[in-house]
Amino acid sequence: MKTSMYSERSLKMKPSFIREILKAANQPGMISFAGGLPNTSLFPAKQMEEATKMVFKEYGDQALQYSATEGIPELKDWIKNYYWNEFQMKVEEDEILITSGSQQGLDLISRTFINRKDKVLIESPGYLGAINCFESNDADLMSIPIEGDGPDIDRLKNVFNFNPDIKLFYAVPTFQNPSGACYSKEKRNQIITLMKAHSALFIEDDPYGELYYSGGKYTPMKKQLGDKGILLGSFSKMLSPGLRVGWVIAEKQIIKALCKQKQSCDLHTSTLNQYMIYCYLKQNDFKEHLKGLRTFYKKNCEMMMDEIHQQLWTKSSFIEPKGGMFLWLDLPKEISIDSLLYKAMSEGVLFVPGKSFELPGCSNNAIRLNFSNSTFEEIKRGILVLDNIIND
Amino acid sequence: MKTSMYSERSLKMKPSFIREILKAANQPGMISFAGGLPNTSLFPAKQMEEATKMVFKEYGDQALQYSATEGIPELKDWIKNYYWNEFQMKVEEDEILITSGSQQGLDLISRTFINRKDKVLIESPGYLGAINCFESNDADLMSIPIEGDGPDIDRLKNVFNFNPDIKLFYAVPTFQNPSGACYSKEKRNQIITLMKAHSALFIEDDPYGELYYSGGKYTPMKKQLGDKGILLGSFSKMLSPGLRVGWVIAEKQIIKALCKQKQSCDLHTSTLNQYMIYCYLKQNDFKEHLKGLRTFYKKNCEMMMDEIHQQLWTKSSFIEPKGGMFLWLDLPKEISIDSLLYKAMSEGVLFVPGKSFELPGCSNNAIRLNFSNSTFEEIKRGILVLDNIIND
Repeated sequence: MKTSMYSERSLKMKPSFIREILKAANQPGMISFAGGLPNTSLFPAKQMEEATKMVFKEYGDQALQYSATEGIPELKDWIKNYYWNEFQMKVEEDEILITSGSQQGLDLISRTFINRKDKVLIESPGYLGAINCFESNDADLMSIPIEGDGPDIDRLKNVFNFNPDIKLFYAVPTFQNPSGACYSKEKRNQIITLMKAHSALFIEDDPYGELYYSGGKYTPMKKQLGDKGILLGSFSKMLSPGLRVGWVIAEKQIIKALCKQKQSCDLHTSTLNQYMIYCYLKQNDFKEHLKGLRTFYKKNCEMMMDEIHQQLWTKSSFIEPKGGMFLWLDLPKEISIDSLLYKAMSEGVLFVPGKSFELPGCSNNAIRLNFSNSTFEEIKRGILVLDNIIND
Repeated sequence: MKTSMYSERSLKMKPSFIREILKAANQPGMISFAGGLPNTSLFPAKQMEEATKMVFKEYGDQALQYSATEGIPELKDWIKNYYWNEFQMKVEEDEILITSGSQQGLDLISRTFINRKDKVLIESPGYLGAINCFESNDADLMSIPIEGDGPDIDRLKNVFNFNPDIKLFYAVPTFQNPSGACYSKEKRNQIITLMKAHSALFIEDDPYGELYYSGGKYTPMKKQLGDKGILLGSFSKMLSPGLRVGWVIAEKQIIKALCKQKQSCDLHTSTLNQYMIYCYLKQNDFKEHLKGLRTFYKKNCEMMMDEIHQQLWTKSSFIEPKGGMFLWLDLPKEISIDSLLYKAMSEGVLFVPGKSFELPGCSNNAIRLNFSNSTFEEIKRGILVLDNIIND
């Protein structure tokens, strides 16, 4: 077929570089620090099976039928109570939309707000799924560098002063992907003040909030942002990504607008999966489950930090991740990341080069290491392989 | 929030009229001919529960993990075999993309092919989900009237002659929603010849193909169209819509392009649901299940036709549906459909006015009646209510 048949948005989308790396991750014996996968061993498969029984018992055929675009009331109710119990944050049912994973939340937000060339501010480095999504929806992307405790506030103020027409500011303030950064409470407050003075909406993506290992839990900025904020949540990292269930919290007019888009995207999120998650949450001690995840991931994170300290400390630096799934390793300029990746792959170790998470023109000499989906032994061996190549 | 914040595509999308009608359908005692829901009593809930057990036994935690955007190989393999066994139609694995319902297939196709103002030809009346989807993706929509056996071929030729730049022709050739029309074999062949002479792609939406009640089964036009055709399929009407699993069949370059879009939409379709359907298909006699659906729906369809013949025959006309879920009732011009809907609703009967399925400027004086989701008694009473209002 002729290339001219394709839409502009299709032609400009490159196949994801990470996807290509991840294909290599399936080769046997490969140590992968590349993906962003939860550890499969932590999925409560037995409990999910029990939950399914309850779904068919309580909801029967209804769980297999079409359902409302907004999501099933039971699950929305759980989400509402979750924010109230955890953060004393008030959310109404019509301020919630259940999505097919929070990636869909991003897509719906893009479609609802972005006209061609509208300015969207993202973090640098930033979440690749968001970058792709905003780009495919024709946004004019700008980025703000992220330090360990969030963006430099003066610089951020400048960006907004010079670009009063920024429409959306997208951020992952808590245990960011890819950098592992976590916005300090002070910077959060400063950003909230700044956003209230501007017309832009703050899109707060929070898939990792429950995966805190030190420094405790963060209240979503949405609580103070009110109608200026849109919050994205997800069961992917807390329970199971394979079920594709996430949510958006926003003022009800925005939820209505997102809903209209969702209807033309996929009508609604799987009825069965929503009931499965709801029944799982009813039958199990979710807090205990989350505690288990934290204990496990924290050990992996510490293991990776220890190994890096032992092997690579003279040649690299990183900010200790206080949570999440990633460690961002800065390497000296003289080390070529491309060549490191090439050699590491040939020795069975994978990671994602930091430049993959940047807009063109931005630069870093870092690599993203995922620590959630490897064993201690793999972490040990993998870091050793990297060390040997770097010190070769 | 200011209206100016929303995107143009968001502002131009009206809340679906059908959605408003469907909300009324949930009121107790309401007889609804309005939706397009499969009959809940036909869902194989017990068997799906068994299938879930098999999923967790055979695939365990993997069923809860992220999976490939293209879909799980097992289900793609089943689809490949289905087309070969049923129609001797050859499909390769890389010509299949699993989607979150076939609504998503439509959305991905729109994103992949449509630039602002690109011409898309649809049927009149046409499937509302498609109209909304193409419109929200900025297509310039044109329509061709559908008769009981498909479009008038000379008229269709004229449309293409005057509009050589039509990019997509979207149709539901088999048991169309909303009209119940079914393209004759002769017209199918003529359209295939026509499409091969033009640059446009033919988008063949086929959710109802297995629901044939008289006249047998139709081979997808895609078989003869080859690379000129894109075929959309779905488990929604055959098994369960609540699982949101459908598929697209197209040449592999197109599948790659659709995949890139899907990544930014929702990463992939629920891993668990794909395995559930696959295990269901392995454990059960699917052909027998489909036969059961046909027997049930055929009776409902005949019941509705009988009642209309008995009550409304002097005031209406319709083409006998050879399959599918809808009966399209043409009423004389002097009957106001709006007033009929209003009165029928107040007497507990719902339907969708035919104009809902038309582009602005097109007209009909018909109503769409769904017969799949009512009991005999409801069909009897519902048609009587309509008759009483019409003859009042």
